[in-house]
Amino acid sequence: MRQPPARHGDPLEAVDTPALIVDLDALERNIARMQAGAAAAGVALRPHAKTHKCPVIGGWQVTAGAVGLCCQKTEEAERLVEGGIKDVYISNEVVGDAKLVRLAELANHARLSVCVDDARGVAALEDAAARAGSKIDVLVELEVGGGRCGVRTPQAAADLAARVAAAPCLSFAGLHVYNGAVQHVRTAQERRAAAVALEDKVGQALALLTGQGLSCGRITGAGTGSFAQDLEAGILTELQCGSYVFMDADYARNRDAAGGFEQSLFVLATVMSAPASDLIVVDAGLKALAFDSGPPLVHGHADLVFAGPSDEHGEITGPAGRMPAWGEKLELVPGHCDPTVNLHDFYVGMRAGRVEKVWPIAARGAGR
Amino acid sequence: MRQPPARHGDPLEAVDTPALIVDLDALERNIARMQAGAAAAGVALRPHAKTHKCPVIGGWQVTAGAVGLCCQKTEEAERLVEGGIKDVYISNEVVGDAKLVRLAELANHARLSVCVDDARGVAALEDAAARAGSKIDVLVELEVGGGRCGVRTPQAAADLAARVAAAPCLSFAGLHVYNGAVQHVRTAQERRAAAVALEDKVGQALALLTGQGLSCGRITGAGTGSFAQDLEAGILTELQCGSYVFMDADYARNRDAAGGFEQSLFVLATVMSAPASDLIVVDAGLKALAFDSGPPLVHGHADLVFAGPSDEHGEITGPAGRMPAWGEKLELVPGHCDPTVNLHDFYVGMRAGRVEKVWPIAARGAGR
Repeated sequence: MRQPPARHGDPLEAVDTPALIVDLDALERNIARMQAGAAAAGVALRPHAKTHKCPVIGGWQVTAGAVGLCCQKTEEAERLVEGGIKDVYISNEVVGDAKLVRLAELANHARLSVCVDDARGVAALEDAAARAGSKIDVLVELEVGGGRCGVRTPQAAADLAARVAAAPCLSFAGLHVYNGAVQHVRTAQERRAAAVALEDKVGQALALLTGQGLSCGRITGAGTGSFAQDLEAGILTELQCGSYVFMDADYARNRDAAGGFEQSLFVLATVMSAPASDLIVVDAGLKALAFDSGPPLVHGHADLVFAGPSDEHGEITGPAGRMPAWGEKLELVPGHCDPTVNLHDFYVGMRAGRVEKVWPIAARGAGR
Repeated sequence: MRQPPARHGDPLEAVDTPALIVDLDALERNIARMQAGAAAAGVALRPHAKTHKCPVIGGWQVTAGAVGLCCQKTEEAERLVEGGIKDVYISNEVVGDAKLVRLAELANHARLSVCVDDARGVAALEDAAARAGSKIDVLVELEVGGGRCGVRTPQAAADLAARVAAAPCLSFAGLHVYNGAVQHVRTAQERRAAAVALEDKVGQALALLTGQGLSCGRITGAGTGSFAQDLEAGILTELQCGSYVFMDADYARNRDAAGGFEQSLFVLATVMSAPASDLIVVDAGLKALAFDSGPPLVHGHADLVFAGPSDEHGEITGPAGRMPAWGEKLELVPGHCDPTVNLHDFYVGMRAGRVEKVWPIAARGAGR
């Protein structure tokens, strides 16, 4: 069994490394800020738990007013329901018998909804729900610019919705319209153009659904990068933002970013080698940090560059003679929060310089 | 608790996805081939367990003739010793009180060796060993072209070795001379030049050590990319190769590669969406595969390109109308084996089309 990297009451310097650190004050402010934004716009907030993978943080979000949580995988949904979350949306297609058996059974223990983009998926879901004796809310994914999953046309969405509505154990619950590609587009103007395109395509689908006598309970989408523009477009009824709880170095590169969210997530690392005057090596590399959206930043050290990772090393360069000392601990701002979290087993929650929470990341690795 | 993705006797099609698949015949041939190569050259083989993080596979390597295993982290060493490995080398600097307490205690239960590159590290290690009442073998890391950890000059190595030799609870056990940067240099000619440079620098250090009356028990280094050239240079007494057990897409790009090692590791994924004639989406992305050394290849499908990952999706493009079907399972060859393994909790070992082994990856996430 894994041992946690800290004990309650420890100061930061006593936390073993690498460790995932959460600034609890900043986390709470981020949760409250997004909830207030959704409430002011009159839309529901269903935060994405693929970011934190932790039912405790999810519980804080629900207590603050979220209608439930999103996740991407059946195993994540299991961990969230086990952790007390009562309304979970798997905002993704689920394909394969083993998964569908688990998903349909889980629907007997929580309000569960899931995405489809294929008639074969609808048939398999109906079959699994019938066997488990459960009822499942189903949303049709309509592609809105991400170029990933989702039916390509409003007509195809309406046709698939009719299949869902005709399935005895399924209920048509709405449209899933998430554009992942736009979250990291740098200017608000470009993100606004994407939101307008989304509005047009969803409007066409809604007209077709209405023509078929189907009501569209939820129109769900948006992320931390696009929600402000999506709210302006005014067509979503539910926001799926996830990263706002933690933020990361890549989101910090978005200009005109909305919301004033604070960096609350850090990877604590130790200087394990100081072999040259302009080079230190820390004990966190590819197995403690995600690099798909660029390297981490060194918090509070704008003159240091995380130049190169290997499996368990991070090379940091900077001004000769003015580098952090051998044995010193540094806070790194991850390039991409979600896959960084998935590398760790515990959060160490800090407040006023002391460890206040040590939370298992219950859905870490829950990838099926 | 995690549930394994397969049961004994299952055919591949019944394995839930994403799952880490091992071809057991290829694994056994790779283990035997590297052992035979080391034996023919008259050097010891101490395979790197940071690749597989699994004491069962490590036990197979020891049974085949390995003198022990390498790992990078104290927690990895704990998992290996718990799993029955009796001789473990932490081929890395270990810095921080919490880690050193654990390391020194572990040395009471196995033959343990570790790396240093700083006099402060030697003092901290001696202090921890004295408190635990243990004896620790210590190797001095000499930088040989990787530009990462390690003292920079032969003289500094000799000075540090003298400090180790003078510490009552430590024994000077040799030199650590690993060049990570050269493993993925594409031509054997360039790798040979690096091996010659290594030979020169180590030769100078050995002369200084001899002058101080210190014998150098082990000269340890090399990886799967460089071992053939390092053996030609003739200065190493111990090989640390790790990736040869599995191989990956990046090692496959090395030209003139030695050894004939076979790809034995795959990530099994399911086509979860087929939204266009030239696009499929599989259920494996950044949380099931490492992308630091490029995207995975689709095994047996040279015409398919893994074009883009997101957290839990992989977009694969290819010839319109000739794509794998919705629901089909595909084997992906990881771009980089070590950090891919670290994302999974189980190996599914296949032989003759059936699941023969389901092994926990005991040191998954053991990063401290």
